[in-house]
Amino acid sequence: MEMTEKVQHRVVVIGAGFAGRYAARALRGADAHVTVLNATNHHVFAPLVYQVATGVLSPGEVATPVRELFRRQDNAEVLLGWATDVDVEGRVVTAIAPGGLPYQLPYDTLVVAAGAAQSYFGNDGFAEHAPGLKTLDDAVELRARIFSAFEMAELETDPAAVQRWLTFVIVGAGPTGVELAGQIAEIAHRTLPGEYRRIDPAGARIVLLDAADRVLPAYRPRSSAKAEKRLRKLGVEVHVGAKVVDVDATGVVFETGAGTRRLEALTKVWSAGVAAPSLAGRIAAATGAETDRAGRIKVEPDLTVAGHPEIFVVGDLMSRDGLPGVAQVAIQGGGYVGRTVKRRLAGRQAGRPFRYLDKGTMAVVSRFSAVADLPGGLRLSGLAGWLLWLLVHWAYLPKGRNRVGSLARWTVAFLGRRRPERAVTSHQALSRTAPRASAEPDHEPALR
Amino acid sequence: MEMTEKVQHRVVVIGAGFAGRYAARALRGADAHVTVLNATNHHVFAPLVYQVATGVLSPGEVATPVRELFRRQDNAEVLLGWATDVDVEGRVVTAIAPGGLPYQLPYDTLVVAAGAAQSYFGNDGFAEHAPGLKTLDDAVELRARIFSAFEMAELETDPAAVQRWLTFVIVGAGPTGVELAGQIAEIAHRTLPGEYRRIDPAGARIVLLDAADRVLPAYRPRSSAKAEKRLRKLGVEVHVGAKVVDVDATGVVFETGAGTRRLEALTKVWSAGVAAPSLAGRIAAATGAETDRAGRIKVEPDLTVAGHPEIFVVGDLMSRDGLPGVAQVAIQGGGYVGRTVKRRLAGRQAGRPFRYLDKGTMAVVSRFSAVADLPGGLRLSGLAGWLLWLLVHWAYLPKGRNRVGSLARWTVAFLGRRRPERAVTSHQALSRTAPRASAEPDHEPALR
Repeated sequence: MEMTEKVQHRVVVIGAGFAGRYAARALRGADAHVTVLNATNHHVFAPLVYQVATGVLSPGEVATPVRELFRRQDNAEVLLGWATDVDVEGRVVTAIAPGGLPYQLPYDTLVVAAGAAQSYFGNDGFAEHAPGLKTLDDAVELRARIFSAFEMAELETDPAAVQRWLTFVIVGAGPTGVELAGQIAEIAHRTLPGEYRRIDPAGARIVLLDAADRVLPAYRPRSSAKAEKRLRKLGVEVHVGAKVVDVDATGVVFETGAGTRRLEALTKVWSAGVAAPSLAGRIAAATGAETDRAGRIKVEPDLTVAGHPEIFVVGDLMSRDGLPGVAQVAIQGGGYVGRTVKRRLAGRQAGRPFRYLDKGTMAVVSRFSAVADLPGGLRLSGLAGWLLWLLVHWAYLPKGRNRVGSLARWTVAFLGRRRPERAVTSHQALSRTAPRASAEPDHEPALR
Repeated sequence: MEMTEKVQHRVVVIGAGFAGRYAARALRGADAHVTVLNATNHHVFAPLVYQVATGVLSPGEVATPVRELFRRQDNAEVLLGWATDVDVEGRVVTAIAPGGLPYQLPYDTLVVAAGAAQSYFGNDGFAEHAPGLKTLDDAVELRARIFSAFEMAELETDPAAVQRWLTFVIVGAGPTGVELAGQIAEIAHRTLPGEYRRIDPAGARIVLLDAADRVLPAYRPRSSAKAEKRLRKLGVEVHVGAKVVDVDATGVVFETGAGTRRLEALTKVWSAGVAAPSLAGRIAAATGAETDRAGRIKVEPDLTVAGHPEIFVVGDLMSRDGLPGVAQVAIQGGGYVGRTVKRRLAGRQAGRPFRYLDKGTMAVVSRFSAVADLPGGLRLSGLAGWLLWLLVHWAYLPKGRNRVGSLARWTVAFLGRRRPERAVTSHQALSRTAPRASAEPDHEPALR
């Protein structure tokens, strides 16, 4: 007796950022079982994470439950876990759940969309003192550091200590660094004045450093110039051609043509460069794929790994034609991969190679002011750029959910001076300054 | 040569909950320097904290920066710190900032509004396994536990383990316990179904325990009956006359007339009883004031400590005429204290003793259903009670701020099935289940 049972094609998608989300989404209706594996319970709307860090949006407004995104996609399931390894020969992904529960996911097709982490260019010790701004954890931590710094300054009596608390250094003047510098300046100049009695929040120093010769080095020079001018007007100190050589608990050391300088600053943020997670190295070693300097995996024109048509790499982890690690590359790449797999499953011919359609790029410098480099040499800046930013980002927010809420927040933050999401938990306040702790409150909830 | 410089009267308010907030507020325009000391940077709108724990509201929607509240009150300053001790003779409060920076605040008048913590009736070991729900820390932690429990259940293959993750026990059937049980039931029955492929979220057990003979024991019996009926309809298991005798990592043991039972449950919440912080004990010892069983300080008719007209105690820390620890007692008591101090400073006669005006009390059982005990024997339940609840709570939210946002959230949560604030950070997910950890992700932000 012979039984033939059709075994469904299994697609495992590692990561539910833009790339993984759009890849899995494009498989809707495909004859496949899709498993989306993500390390947290949420998809992060990365371009707005800095607004959580600066008190404009709530975590829930930039972090959508992954399950909610795939609720209506019957062929997709969502699992919480970190992909720790891939058995390329046996076609199995190993993952661990929070708490260490290990499990395995066999696949027929693998989509690696695990994203990239912050790179400290070999100085990983900097991370403790200057966290990055990629995840929701980063944003919530940075928010606590920014708003707590002003609180601590108010309590200090030594003017040097006050100044250390009121100095904010942002390393890296890409879009995130520029947006963050502008936002911290607005917090210091617009949100907090009037709330303090001992310090003047507007006296805060916001310092933006970059080793390149201009801010927004990936943008057109005129956009860089506009952004820098606007930043200076906001009171941000901009140092370009400044290479950071040391970061410790109380300051930053950087080199410029003019020599080496140290800045005393208790709050530092790092937004300079990306590094692939070690999973990428393991996949590269197992498949023989090449990686670039940042450890990203080089892919074929159809975004597969050479010699492994069943493995796709997409998003920030993908290295291809010098494409930047931005949302649009991840969104378009993810969609392409999903469609390619669907086409294969339907037995159709291979499609055309992946082609990135440049829709332009934008960075907000302050409220009512952004720079936008658009295709065809078009450039917008100031209010026009900002309105375009508002429109595009609002349109791309996951539908139906917090769009109304976000709009309300933006109205409050842009028209008024308020930042609705400033609450720092006790847990954060204590861990923030723990090295100094000499006594602990007696009914402190975080210490239970 | 003689110089006479008028020294301004110094009022120190310990705590910026409802009592402290309204006391300091009533001192607006008084000839005094008011210092509001708070352990966090925010005032918590306590009656809505459970909505943060269950993903409806964002932290910023129930936590207003204390500084923002006093921005326009020129005679008030806000300092971040824990009051650790009071030198009653020398009239000095000692506080520590996060990180251990100690400082002292001399006072002429002291308002102690430090609130109360959760009481475990001598079993403080329960706290780790069954946190309370009083602070923003509590809410964010509980939210992570609730939503992570379903995620973990989805990953388990052992049916008993699945059931442990899907059993939620709430100890204490006061308003917070009832509201929480109702909300978790709504999460299980309305929010999550459709999002899971392996488990059925609607199969979750939500168990509400109380040692009293009915839920909402402080309400009128008919309200209790209505609430219990509605809870059962939502699928909540209600056990009254059930005394919890043990809580550990994986379960709860309780005694009823019928004997002793153990429930296997990985998520437990404690909302049964309050305890005064140790500061209260120190103040009582130094002033000779009596305390009640919970450690709350007994006060005179004008809310001062006997023999110490310069020390007021108000809010949850105050023991007077059996008044309950609810927002209205704190709000009215705080206002009374502020006005009393202002009157004294103006050289006017002492006013009348504090009289609490009972405005009634309300608890939400589920969306569209609440019970309200109003003055004069009036009772509302069901939709009418719920509409009253909505109106009153919205009206009491700090003005101008997140009221629009909150209304948007409520609309989303009440009319739809969604809970907008469900994101669990990696840090929380890891700490949540840390005892089990056997491996750690390699580029995990929380581990930096």
